[in-house]
Amino acid sequence: MFENETDAPRMKSERTRALIRDTALASFRERGYDETTVRLIAHEAGISLGNAYYYFPTKNHLVQELYVEVQREHRSVAVPLLETSDELIERLGIVYRSGLATLEPFHAFAPGFLSAAVSPRSPINPLGDDSTEARELSVGLFRDAVGGARHSLPDDLARSLPEVFWLGYLLLALFWVYDSSPGRERTLRLLDRGLKLLGIALPLARLPLLRKPLRELVELIGEVRA
Amino acid sequence: MFENETDAPRMKSERTRALIRDTALASFRERGYDETTVRLIAHEAGISLGNAYYYFPTKNHLVQELYVEVQREHRSVAVPLLETSDELIERLGIVYRSGLATLEPFHAFAPGFLSAAVSPRSPINPLGDDSTEARELSVGLFRDAVGGARHSLPDDLARSLPEVFWLGYLLLALFWVYDSSPGRERTLRLLDRGLKLLGIALPLARLPLLRKPLRELVELIGEVRA
Repeated sequence: MFENETDAPRMKSERTRALIRDTALASFRERGYDETTVRLIAHEAGISLGNAYYYFPTKNHLVQELYVEVQREHRSVAVPLLETSDELIERLGIVYRSGLATLEPFHAFAPGFLSAAVSPRSPINPLGDDSTEARELSVGLFRDAVGGARHSLPDDLARSLPEVFWLGYLLLALFWVYDSSPGRERTLRLLDRGLKLLGIALPLARLPLLRKPLRELVELIGEVRA
Repeated sequence: MFENETDAPRMKSERTRALIRDTALASFRERGYDETTVRLIAHEAGISLGNAYYYFPTKNHLVQELYVEVQREHRSVAVPLLETSDELIERLGIVYRSGLATLEPFHAFAPGFLSAAVSPRSPINPLGDDSTEARELSVGLFRDAVGGARHSLPDDLARSLPEVFWLGYLLLALFWVYDSSPGRERTLRLLDRGLKLLGIALPLARLPLLRKPLRELVELIGEVRA
């Protein structure tokens, strides 16, 4: 009893935070980025604006909550599926496909998020410092996909590839934003064909002729965040 | 004399249009996308707002002028250089490098343009209908680069590649927006390494094993505009 009483303020604070977060996530799903405001969320959650700003000073803080939530969901779907295969291309396919499925509820509003996030100066840019938690969750999934696979790639390449596959995921998501085909079949076909080609081309990375230029390219691509 | 007199209104109209356009291009270079407005341009060009709106109903119309102007400049620099080589990778390098040089004066303001243009619903999206004139100029340059080169690529691939190389140019420009290195050396290195790898990998496209999946992938990538 005594412990519950001292915990009460912390618990109340966490409940308020969770209430705002859930209200915001629903709003992002139903209204999109542009129409969602902290003011609107406070009103819908039935709390004062000052209180809402205490937990989430800007809309960007709400977007970071959304990012982390989406990545957690992606992880919870992908990890059990990864146990079904130790083949690299199949494992990548699992991560990419489950990621697209997690994004799908936001497709109608994706252009608004994209415009707001794409500038390197945007606080909700997925490559930016504020997005570190969400990004680490997502890159970690690609690390799991590569790490748990049978493959004979050179070590240095195997270490750099998860970040490159993650950047590939951002590009796939960019294509997906533009994809108006039913069931997003065009994006899924692009992914399938891309993976098939990767499966044929990746073993060539062991050839001395290709190894050095490929490693240099992979390193440079990783520098996009520098 | 008589002909000059009937031509006078048309000439005056063209002069006004050119005056607005030049004022707008200077403003985009000096202030960027966000700070440039038709109102401001009209004021600076010393013409009435109504008259400015007659020629350029929205800022988007000014951006399309800018796009076409930049592509014309790119073409005027690249075409003479293309006469110096008939080697495909070298010719692609000429087009990419001269394109980056043409974009460079806008680097400080590139994030603003990117945010405004990246949504598939944006009227200044380079893939959109309104950008057809500028896009055709730019894709045409990649068609020249491929068409004037010695190579032994399958015909169907050679036909699809210019559009894919142009999309690659958009992605390179995306990397360039994020590149804060001096002289944009990181983007130039990425280009160099990418071209080197392409030079090694492209001849493999003739292998029956790679030919079909590669063709399918290239076709899908081209569908990004569909």
